[in-house]
Amino acid sequence: MIIVIQSKDQIGLVAAISGIMSRNGLNIVSLREHVDKAESRFFMRIEAEHEADPSSLENEIKAVLPSDAYVTVNPQPDKKVVLLVTKEYHCLADILVRNYFKTLGATIQCVIGNYSNLENICTRFDVPFHLVSHEQTDKEAFEKNIAGIVERYTPDYIVLAKFMRILSPAFVARFPTRIINIHHSFLPAFAGAHPYKQAFERGVKLIGATSHFVTDELDEGPIIAQQVIPVNHSYTAADMMKAGKEIEVSVLAKALSLVFSDRVFVYRNKTVVFE
Amino acid sequence: MIIVIQSKDQIGLVAAISGIMSRNGLNIVSLREHVDKAESRFFMRIEAEHEADPSSLENEIKAVLPSDAYVTVNPQPDKKVVLLVTKEYHCLADILVRNYFKTLGATIQCVIGNYSNLENICTRFDVPFHLVSHEQTDKEAFEKNIAGIVERYTPDYIVLAKFMRILSPAFVARFPTRIINIHHSFLPAFAGAHPYKQAFERGVKLIGATSHFVTDELDEGPIIAQQVIPVNHSYTAADMMKAGKEIEVSVLAKALSLVFSDRVFVYRNKTVVFE
Amino acid sequence: MIIVIQSKDQIGLVAAISGIMSRNGLNIVSLREHVDKAESRFFMRIEAEHEADPSSLENEIKAVLPSDAYVTVNPQPDKKVVLLVTKEYHCLADILVRNYFKTLGATIQCVIGNYSNLENICTRFDVPFHLVSHEQTDKEAFEKNIAGIVERYTPDYIVLAKFMRILSPAFVARFPTRIINIHHSFLPAFAGAHPYKQAFERGVKLIGATSHFVTDELDEGPIIAQQVIPVNHSYTAADMMKAGKEIEVSVLAKALSLVFSDRVFVYRNKTVVFE
Amino acid sequence: MIIVIQSKDQIGLVAAISGIMSRNGLNIVSLREHVDKAESRFFMRIEAEHEADPSSLENEIKAVLPSDAYVTVNPQPDKKVVLLVTKEYHCLADILVRNYFKTLGATIQCVIGNYSNLENICTRFDVPFHLVSHEQTDKEAFEKNIAGIVERYTPDYIVLAKFMRILSPAFVARFPTRIINIHHSFLPAFAGAHPYKQAFERGVKLIGATSHFVTDELDEGPIIAQQVIPVNHSYTAADMMKAGKEIEVSVLAKALSLVFSDRVFVYRNKTVVFE
Repeated sequence: MIIVIQSKDQIGLVAAISGIMSRNGLNIVSLREHVDKAESRFFMRIEAEHEADPSSLENEIKAVLPSDAYVTVNPQPDKKVVLLVTKEYHCLADILVRNYFKTLGATIQCVIGNYSNLENICTRFDVPFHLVSHEQTDKEAFEKNIAGIVERYTPDYIVLAKFMRILSPAFVARFPTRIINIHHSFLPAFAGAHPYKQAFERGVKLIGATSHFVTDELDEGPIIAQQVIPVNHSYTAADMMKAGKEIEVSVLAKALSLVFSDRVFVYRNKTVVFE
Repeated sequence: MIIVIQSKDQIGLVAAISGIMSRNGLNIVSLREHVDKAESRFFMRIEAEHEADPSSLENEIKAVLPSDAYVTVNPQPDKKVVLLVTKEYHCLADILVRNYFKTLGATIQCVIGNYSNLENICTRFDVPFHLVSHEQTDKEAFEKNIAGIVERYTPDYIVLAKFMRILSPAFVARFPTRIINIHHSFLPAFAGAHPYKQAFERGVKLIGATSHFVTDELDEGPIIAQQVIPVNHSYTAADMMKAGKEIEVSVLAKALSLVFSDRVFVYRNKTVVFE
Repeated sequence: MIIVIQSKDQIGLVAAISGIMSRNGLNIVSLREHVDKAESRFFMRIEAEHEADPSSLENEIKAVLPSDAYVTVNPQPDKKVVLLVTKEYHCLADILVRNYFKTLGATIQCVIGNYSNLENICTRFDVPFHLVSHEQTDKEAFEKNIAGIVERYTPDYIVLAKFMRILSPAFVARFPTRIINIHHSFLPAFAGAHPYKQAFERGVKLIGATSHFVTDELDEGPIIAQQVIPVNHSYTAADMMKAGKEIEVSVLAKALSLVFSDRVFVYRNKTVVFE
Repeated sequence: MIIVIQSKDQIGLVAAISGIMSRNGLNIVSLREHVDKAESRFFMRIEAEHEADPSSLENEIKAVLPSDAYVTVNPQPDKKVVLLVTKEYHCLADILVRNYFKTLGATIQCVIGNYSNLENICTRFDVPFHLVSHEQTDKEAFEKNIAGIVERYTPDYIVLAKFMRILSPAFVARFPTRIINIHHSFLPAFAGAHPYKQAFERGVKLIGATSHFVTDELDEGPIIAQQVIPVNHSYTAADMMKAGKEIEVSVLAKALSLVFSDRVFVYRNKTVVFE
């Protein structure tokens, strides 16, 4: 069994929770607990052997925790996910492959794109593709169209797999801590739209990518995963972009793997990741 | 407070231990627990806020655990360490610098070398150096001389900082899981005496280093830390050795930092590292 | 223009070659030259601006080099490739995606598998799949069947994308330095069939993957690329295998990118890689 | 022999230079050439076997190059270096150790510190230490004092080994492309004085360090080397600083090794590094 918990911190939480586990005959084989002292916030993830009724256990645990606690026993193993894309295929294709071979830890319900060029690859994998153009419409209508499709699917997560339009606070507010983005730089360096051009001009020796939850503040949401790769003087801005795409695929895959296996906790502008 | 525990696994250990913590008014701010299922072995490390009497707490915890349990409350923060060296300075100097600036998490009591060339650097840092030559003597007498000096200092750990003589099982048996080595390859690749020559001849694209506890089996003890760095066709065997030394320093420093902060548990031929 | 050259070393080769470049009005914008002194072997890769007739230039350069020299001016940019697979999809799918989006630097002509389970993904990408079972046949006939299909396509390279049968020296001899393998360990550690099991039992802290040219000696061919990722005590052998697959995909993609862009030179048991 | 060249680009430079090499009976065993096309700038580094008179060779080469060319044949192998420090010991001690064991590729002539706490370690290594306090003086006088000492030693390079005062453009102008700094962040992220605090607050998953030449623009000079290490939610800002120091030592050592072996070329705001 997997149990994930987040709540206000106080003395005795581990004892109270593990006491319940023990009385239910459950053997804790892996436990990660962290207290954010500045925020007085408690995070815990348990893997246990043997079985108990999940909803009874969840209620038992909630009863001993502060009233604001989030507790999930055996979180749904197969998350439902909607992807948003623009024109670039690399992150999308990687996710479609994992989805097809059932190693994603989630099911892609549909892909929504603001261009039509990625429809073909979706069709090849039997994943519905919805074209929602941002042209000849205003942002509000554009987002309303997207939200309408998304809500039909009631996904657990929305993944921006190189979706290059900036979402409004109003859209983000509908899906709090449920939108995951891949940003093509080692944030906070080179925030904004043209990181590889900036990286080239600055002459950096490493480029990176960042996966984060989307919040109202552009490129400022809680970071889930980051990676870098070395570059050198022989890389043009285009070479950096090409190299960066490999890292973007890798970082987004890593972040999704962590989120879909219930290892990522969000509080305010940071994550706790029990890797 | 820091509490580290290793014992046979059974249901209820976390509850029993954290119950004691809670009743003593201690707030657990970081907890790592792992069960090695194949070995049915329980490992735990707790960081807690507020204070209790360490030896009472240790006894309270021992009383609820299987009789074979190891429990340490507030392990001694400043370990005593004896270094063994041969001719190479790089790991030794790094440790002497950290020792001098009190950032090692341990105190170097003395250095034992089988050549005299490293005496000068020890003297500059006010660390006693003992020359024990392996020449004109047999291995038994050589090791008896070393052991005699070591035991005068009653160290917590013996660190082989590029000590290039193979220690006999008899010597190793006197200091079980207390001898730490740095091996100049990414074990188990290139075990033995000339890893860089082998790496060069094989044309590998990465070279590495491994820090491990020393056991009877040469280069086979429990691994604490490993790192690699890229090399290429332009590296001679000598270049690989030079590059490798940087990694050896880094890996040994990392391993010692983990061991000295009581994050490394040993059971049979493996470690559990709560990094 | 791209020019790649390998020959016996002697004084004046760079001058002779660059003199020809200059007289043809070509501007060398990137030059990499390396001499393997132990083998007295010369390797060079040039990128130049402006244009000349490739075959005249090739002949001009050959005329000033030792008679054993290999010279290629503007190597064919779109290599022809046949893939061999067994049951695992991860490397295959990554290559099929790149092939589909024309970012592989090569064209996959067909996939040959000794099981049928990967036929579907090939079909989805319009790539011919040939089933050649190793069952109910001997090794010689099995390989003859494969070779028959391969030779129909006259590929530049054969890529073993997790092909788990050992090829005979006779088969390998038909395609010298043209068969590329991905091995699921950081060679030479854990050569053989079950590296993740061995890595788990040894308790290593890094696992890796190696892409190499295939020679008669199993797992001993010239190494093109290697990478590692960290693992720890919480990884089962199955977890290591899962993590390792990510690295296998990445290393094979990297190796293919280097080979297909004519940056890899092979001589005896080593590569020179002008990255 | 080592030959390093930088000049305006034009067709025929490689041929002209390698022709001279050949006529002098020199065998080029490693050649790296790069043209920055945007700047039309030519960079080359040659390693050759056999010997010729360095100054004749230098003159011969200069004669065939554009008049603005920089050419150095057999650059001085043992650079003279002055270190500037403030209070932190880690980079200083690493450099002093390498200096003492003659593996730095340079000789430390003296250390100038604006506090006295690092005098002792310098004395232990027989390196002169000069205290120049920034207190009870203005910036101009403070820098004049430093420059006075520096100029007495006529160093090839000034290394800021965690020197925490900002140098004025006037000071920097006296030593163009000869001042090397280590900055405690992955620039351009977290430029300024408190990168670890910023990194902690932003919740990044990697922290880094950057070594660069110092220019008038704070933290904007040409980057020589960068590295990162992973961090996570369990790191306080102080833990990040501690982890970061390991990377700072490593990056600065790497950058100095590259500069002192004449592998780094500077043009405008970027470096070309022939690693």
